[in-house]
Amino acid sequence: MEPILSFEQMWRDLAPVGRSSASGGYFRQPYESAETELRSWFVEQATARGLRVESDELGNIVAWWDPANQIVRRKKLPALPDEGADRGGLSRKGVLTGSHLDSVLDGGAFDGPLGVVSGLAAVDLLRERGLVPAKPIGVSVFAEEEGSRFGLACLGSRLAAGTMDWSAARELQDRDGVFLPDALGAAGLAPDDGDKSWGLHDQVECFVELHVEQGRDLVDRGAAIGVGSEIWPHGRYRFDFAGQANHAGTTRMEDRRDPMLTYAMTALAANKQARLAGERATFGRVEVFPNGTNAVPSRVTAWLDARCETDDGLAALVAAIERQGGDRAGRDGTALAVTAESVSGAVAFDPALARRIAGDHEGGDWPIIPTMAGHDAGILSAAGIPTAMLFVRNPTGVSHSPDEHAEMADCLVGVSALADTLERLAS
Amino acid sequence: MEPILSFEQMWRDLAPVGRSSASGGYFRQPYESAETELRSWFVEQATARGLRVESDELGNIVAWWDPANQIVRRKKLPALPDEGADRGGLSRKGVLTGSHLDSVLDGGAFDGPLGVVSGLAAVDLLRERGLVPAKPIGVSVFAEEEGSRFGLACLGSRLAAGTMDWSAARELQDRDGVFLPDALGAAGLAPDDGDKSWGLHDQVECFVELHVEQGRDLVDRGAAIGVGSEIWPHGRYRFDFAGQANHAGTTRMEDRRDPMLTYAMTALAANKQARLAGERATFGRVEVFPNGTNAVPSRVTAWLDARCETDDGLAALVAAIERQGGDRAGRDGTALAVTAESVSGAVAFDPALARRIAGDHEGGDWPIIPTMAGHDAGILSAAGIPTAMLFVRNPTGVSHSPDEHAEMADCLVGVSALADTLERLAS
Repeated sequence: MEPILSFEQMWRDLAPVGRSSASGGYFRQPYESAETELRSWFVEQATARGLRVESDELGNIVAWWDPANQIVRRKKLPALPDEGADRGGLSRKGVLTGSHLDSVLDGGAFDGPLGVVSGLAAVDLLRERGLVPAKPIGVSVFAEEEGSRFGLACLGSRLAAGTMDWSAARELQDRDGVFLPDALGAAGLAPDDGDKSWGLHDQVECFVELHVEQGRDLVDRGAAIGVGSEIWPHGRYRFDFAGQANHAGTTRMEDRRDPMLTYAMTALAANKQARLAGERATFGRVEVFPNGTNAVPSRVTAWLDARCETDDGLAALVAAIERQGGDRAGRDGTALAVTAESVSGAVAFDPALARRIAGDHEGGDWPIIPTMAGHDAGILSAAGIPTAMLFVRNPTGVSHSPDEHAEMADCLVGVSALADTLERLAS
Repeated sequence: MEPILSFEQMWRDLAPVGRSSASGGYFRQPYESAETELRSWFVEQATARGLRVESDELGNIVAWWDPANQIVRRKKLPALPDEGADRGGLSRKGVLTGSHLDSVLDGGAFDGPLGVVSGLAAVDLLRERGLVPAKPIGVSVFAEEEGSRFGLACLGSRLAAGTMDWSAARELQDRDGVFLPDALGAAGLAPDDGDKSWGLHDQVECFVELHVEQGRDLVDRGAAIGVGSEIWPHGRYRFDFAGQANHAGTTRMEDRRDPMLTYAMTALAANKQARLAGERATFGRVEVFPNGTNAVPSRVTAWLDARCETDDGLAALVAAIERQGGDRAGRDGTALAVTAESVSGAVAFDPALARRIAGDHEGGDWPIIPTMAGHDAGILSAAGIPTAMLFVRNPTGVSHSPDEHAEMADCLVGVSALADTLERLAS
C-alpha cells in the first residue's frame, strides 16, 4: 500500500512525469506512457485513502468516499488493482469533483492535474475536519480532455455523460492513424462495443471542477479563487487548402496555385477578425503536403480554434474567416473546404450553485468569472448535471505552455476552497 | 543476367517503383526502399550491357563503356554485384552523362530518372550505330540530388566533385534525426570516414546531363530539345519564428506572441517580393511546435527556397524578406532568426560546349535556354568540369509534382539527341 501523500508531496510526485527536459513542458498524451503512469498513480493514491475506485474501459476513473453507506449495488467494472475488494455502487447520488491528467503537447503542469490532486487533498482535509459527508464524494479523472491526441476535446467526459456514442468514438484516429480502440488496447484497457457511459446521471448530483485559471481575471481582481459563470462557445474547424504542387524554382510566381499563400492570408484574416471583435481565432496546427523545401505545396491543412461569447457570434466569426479564405483562394487559383470537427455551444453553469459556492466566506465572496476555455465541467453541465467550477489564480495568465503557473500558496487556498465547497454540497 | 531493355521497356519497369496510388506521385527518398531498388535496377541494366560499374559508399554510381581500353589502373571500390570481375580504371578522361534516381516527396516520374534511362538508351543507340568511342562514355547516378531527405541538394555530386567534405556530410540528419552514415548503413552501403570523392576531375573530361524541362520555355518555342546556358543562383534558408505558447481560448488576441502570424505575413511578403521582381521565393515546408489545435504555437520553422538571376539579386531578395519578417516580428512580440542552409551561386555552363552541342543539326540549332532549377550539372560545372545540359520538353511545365510529364515521342528525341551529343564529345 502506498502512503497517503500531502498535496505538496503529490505535486512533487507528478512533477517529472512526462516532462520535457528541453522545453520544461509536459507531454502527457492520452493512453501513452506518461498519462498511463499518472492514472495508475491516481489509483494508488485513491486506494491508499480507502476510496472505492471505479473506472471504465476508456480510462475514466472515479474514486468514491462514501463513509455513510459502503455497498449497495454492483456495477459492471473492469479489472482494477483492488479487484479482490467488494466494489459496490452508490445508494444515493454523490458530489463529484475532479479534472483530467492528460496535457496538450508541451503543456503546463497545472491544467488538469491541479483539479485531480486538489480533489484528493480536499478529501484528506475534510477527514481531518472530522466530516462524515451525508452524500458520497467522488474524485474523478476524465480521459483525453484536451483532444490533443484524437482531436475531440473532452472525449472521456462526453462518453461518460452519454453526449457522445461509442459508435462514433471508435472511429476516431490519432495523427499516426491509430484508432481509439487500438490505443486503449495498447494501454492495457479493454474496449468493447458496449455502452461506454458511466451513467453519470444516476450517480452524480452535482459536479465541481477545480482548475488553474487560464487568463488574468483573478490576477486583475487580486483574488486567489474564483467561481465559473459560463464557458464561451468554441469549436475546431479543419481548413483544407488545395492547390497544385510544382517546382519552387522553375515555376513563375504568376503561374502558381500555391495553397500556402491562401492559408497565410486566412491565418492573418482570422487573427484580425477576432482581435477587432474581442473574440478568439487561432491557427496553431498546420500540416503541409508534401512539405518539401523545393516544391510548391499541393495542400495545406490547418485547424482553426475559434471562440466567442455567443453561439451566433461563433458561427459568424467562422463564416467570416471562411469567406475571406475563399475569396483569397479564388485569387490564388486554390480551393478551400472547411469542416467543423467539433463545436461546443455556450455553457452557463448553474447560477444558484455558483452563488451558493461563491458567497458568504470569511474575507468576502469569491468573484464569479467566465472562461473561454472548454472543460469537462462544460460537458457535464450541458448534459444536465448541475455543475460549477473553481479557478485558482495564475500569475501570468499563460496556459497550454511550459510557462503555465500557480503559486503553491494559491494552490493550497484552492484545496481549502474545494474542501469548503464539497462540505457545503455534501451536507 | 537481366535482358537489355529498350527505353520504353526501362521506363515501364520504373513506373511503379515508389509510386503512391493515392496521389500518383513518387516517393523515392534517398536510401529508402524505392530509391535503393532503383539503384539496384540500374546496376542490373548496366551489367547486362557489359558496362563496368563503379560506385562509392554514398550510392553514387557510374557505368563505363570503354571499348577502346578496358583495364588500366585499379580503383578502391566497394562490393558490387560484379565483384568477381576485374574492375579497372580509366586510361583517359571520359565523357559522362547521367542524372539521379531520387525524387522529392510526391514528385514526378521524370525529374532524374529520365536522364539516367536516356543515358543507358543512348549507349545502346551508339552501339547500334556501330560507334567505337575514342573516349570512355559513362552513365552516372548521383545520390540525394533533391535534398529532400538530408536537406542539402546535390549531396552526392557535391561529395563526388569534392566541393563538400565528408566531415560535414556525416553530420547531416534527416527529419527523423537519422544521421547520414546510419542511413547509408541501413541501405547496405558502407560509409567509412575516408575521402568520399570519386575523383571526378581525374576521370571526367566533360559532363552532359539530360533532364525534363521544369518550365515552359521549350513549349513556347515549339522545340522538343534545348541546351542549358546557365542555372540561376538559389538557396535554402531556414526561418525560425519564436513566440510564446499559450491557450488558444483564454489568451486575448492582443496579449499573444504568436509566431504563426509572423510566419504568415513573411510568406505573403516573400511571394510579393519575388513576383514583382520576376524572381522566385517559396515557403513549401513548415514545422509548427507544438502543433496543437488549442495552443498558440511557441515556434514556427519554415524553409525559404529563393532564386534569382544574379548572386547579388539573391542576397538582396533574402535580405528583403528577412527584413519584412523581422519588422513584423517586432510588432508580434516574436523573434525571427534566419539561417542559410545551402546557397548555390550562379552557374554558367561552358558556352563553347553549349554551342558545340546545340549547333548544326538537321532541322536547325537547338535553342539554348537558362534554368531556375538546381542540378548535379551545376555542381560539376562549379567544380571546374566543362558541363552542359539537355532539356526535354514538358508540355505543362509542371515539375516536382505528380503532374510532371514528357511525351514519349519527345523522350525518344531526347535519347537521340543525347546519343548525338555523346558521339560528338567522345570523338
